[in-house]
Amino acid sequence: MSATVGIGGVTTPEGFRASGTSAGIKASRNLDLALLVSDTPAIAAAVFTTNKAQAAPVVISREHLSASGGVARAIVVNSGCANACTGEDGMRAARDMAAETARLVGCSVAEVLVASTGVIGVALPSEKIRTALPAAFRSLSADQGSAAARAIMTTDPFPKEAAAEVPIGNRTIRIGGMAKGSGMIEPMMATMLAFITTDAAVPQPLLVRALRHAVDDSFNAITVDGECSTNDCVMLLANGAAGVSIDVGNYDAFVDGLRAVCRELALGIVRGGEGATKLVTVNVTGAASSEEARRAAKAIANSLLVKTAIHGGDPNWGRLIAVAGRANVAFDLSKAGVTIGQTTLFKNGRPYDEAAPEAAEYLKGTDIVLAVDLGAGPASSTVWTCDLSAEYVRINAEYRT
Amino acid sequence: MSATVGIGGVTTPEGFRASGTSAGIKASRNLDLALLVSDTPAIAAAVFTTNKAQAAPVVISREHLSASGGVARAIVVNSGCANACTGEDGMRAARDMAAETARLVGCSVAEVLVASTGVIGVALPSEKIRTALPAAFRSLSADQGSAAARAIMTTDPFPKEAAAEVPIGNRTIRIGGMAKGSGMIEPMMATMLAFITTDAAVPQPLLVRALRHAVDDSFNAITVDGECSTNDCVMLLANGAAGVSIDVGNYDAFVDGLRAVCRELALGIVRGGEGATKLVTVNVTGAASSEEARRAAKAIANSLLVKTAIHGGDPNWGRLIAVAGRANVAFDLSKAGVTIGQTTLFKNGRPYDEAAPEAAEYLKGTDIVLAVDLGAGPASSTVWTCDLSAEYVRINAEYRT
Repeated sequence: MSATVGIGGVTTPEGFRASGTSAGIKASRNLDLALLVSDTPAIAAAVFTTNKAQAAPVVISREHLSASGGVARAIVVNSGCANACTGEDGMRAARDMAAETARLVGCSVAEVLVASTGVIGVALPSEKIRTALPAAFRSLSADQGSAAARAIMTTDPFPKEAAAEVPIGNRTIRIGGMAKGSGMIEPMMATMLAFITTDAAVPQPLLVRALRHAVDDSFNAITVDGECSTNDCVMLLANGAAGVSIDVGNYDAFVDGLRAVCRELALGIVRGGEGATKLVTVNVTGAASSEEARRAAKAIANSLLVKTAIHGGDPNWGRLIAVAGRANVAFDLSKAGVTIGQTTLFKNGRPYDEAAPEAAEYLKGTDIVLAVDLGAGPASSTVWTCDLSAEYVRINAEYRT
Repeated sequence: MSATVGIGGVTTPEGFRASGTSAGIKASRNLDLALLVSDTPAIAAAVFTTNKAQAAPVVISREHLSASGGVARAIVVNSGCANACTGEDGMRAARDMAAETARLVGCSVAEVLVASTGVIGVALPSEKIRTALPAAFRSLSADQGSAAARAIMTTDPFPKEAAAEVPIGNRTIRIGGMAKGSGMIEPMMATMLAFITTDAAVPQPLLVRALRHAVDDSFNAITVDGECSTNDCVMLLANGAAGVSIDVGNYDAFVDGLRAVCRELALGIVRGGEGATKLVTVNVTGAASSEEARRAAKAIANSLLVKTAIHGGDPNWGRLIAVAGRANVAFDLSKAGVTIGQTTLFKNGRPYDEAAPEAAEYLKGTDIVLAVDLGAGPASSTVWTCDLSAEYVRINAEYRT
């Protein structure tokens, strides 16, 4: 019944082709230009960053989605430059990138969505992209999804791809996706860049709803460093190539599949977080409301003292309680608790510090589960993060040039 | 007219004696027990952490202040153990510490305030403190303020002391203080531990008001790592030994002096922040309200990406704009600006990235001023922080034992 997440990416669903090429935006000459095209006009939905300093491609993609009435043929993405805080020149560069793609694909400009990722405040080399796009277009293929996934990377240590097959009645639809992101990760709306495709036919309002649902428990539930970027977006294209229509009856199955793909990509972002050595699952229970549970989980997941303790394998549960106590949520110290892995270190306001060595042993692993009970209610939430290492500082302290 | 901040500490004002001794709470046998006594009953005011996981000494000191009607003779402080999250045993240990001090000083238990700092969740070795207190009492002296300042240190790289002489009419009063704190520093009320003395005579309501005013632009305007501890407090004793009474007429001069001492101590905490190599002043202007200015300044001061960029000497102004944009404050990208030192890198929505090398040169210094204009109003705020280094991670990733 449920979706199986496995190998695959944006070209796993029928009727999508992709490519990854080098436009020379990155000095390294690594892949930096990704193109994703649907053979037929696809229904499109997207969620964008809540950052008020929105990058030019975010502004333009929003405009295009609105102008096209939620239809798209292509997504063009560059890495190596965020085209953010670049003023009018940046807006022109984003428009040019969409226009040249539309000319090649043979669609209207509004049917092209654009995205950029990289350094903020540097001009996008429009000419390089224009020159490179024809080759990117010629390279489009149903087996080049992985090249596209590599072309959207910046500091990512590995590409993030996932796909799922979802049985709908006696047919099957496919959902595929790719994502990038390593630093500046705390999506307040969406996280960095993710592009998802499906060959199901989905009416636009349902597609928008499905994306919001799926994003909430995946991209919006992760954090690497508590930062929300100027460029975050998740875009979803549904081209109907599988000949299966999603409606109220099979909506849940579709969302389950979509959420599974989103979560796989989101956890990939955390595993590949800048300097990360451990994936940390933060489960908060005993909260007064889901919102407070999420807020406490985010506060714990973003705490430098928690993240460095996990990095060092220190079962310093007092830091978890200290963060819960300052997270601006209902909290009852006398009923609160902390469990690391299977080891309870604090319960009903009493420490069990003698269990610390057992927890320290567990923390040597790379997949860590922290559970904090706020002792204040029935609600819970899960957030994923990574540890904070000296390598994170090294990556982000390096002068850009 | 105004206060001169200079060398001195808690025993600079008349009628205060202090000592710093070793009770053996720290394995290193470094000083870990500070005692501060006023020769006569002093008017007392204090601000405490807003963390809901309040440590036992915070709970007890609050009780004592209330029971004594705002009068205190002594403050006893241990380092090496926070006595937080220690349940009923911890409460008993804090009470015992106050009771033994009261017996030695010859005052009521309610006239003793207690504070602890160190690891959370570990039992306070009550017996060691009881055994050490008589020697601490015998060591009390008007020239042992510096020993007390050293005895309250944990990961602090140096002790923090300051004093001011404030001319009031044709007389002079003195204000002295000591503070500790290096990590878990983002006071939401007060920061870590600070103890301030004055030989002015100040009515309790005025003393409370003065402390709140002074703390707001000093301890409450600094952050090292965005953490708010379970044990934070600032305590202020006024014993009147100078024979000068503070009233509405000379209140401003008193608060100016108090603020100067608090700010000196607070900036000392930031300069000595865990792993810190630079003191960073964050000036936010163009905010819709003072509250929003403070919120944006705190967000910038706590941003890992900003702190690592400063550490690496990278004038990555885009990160400042990205944080301002996500800080949940009014923000207008087209009117926003960033200046690092004297170098404008972004103004009215336009980048001046060609000035980056000049800013990079400036960032090699150790005293950095960042100015961010939100472009949204007339209000401003200043917050102080430090850079984030690999050393911070090393300090906080080390297993406790």
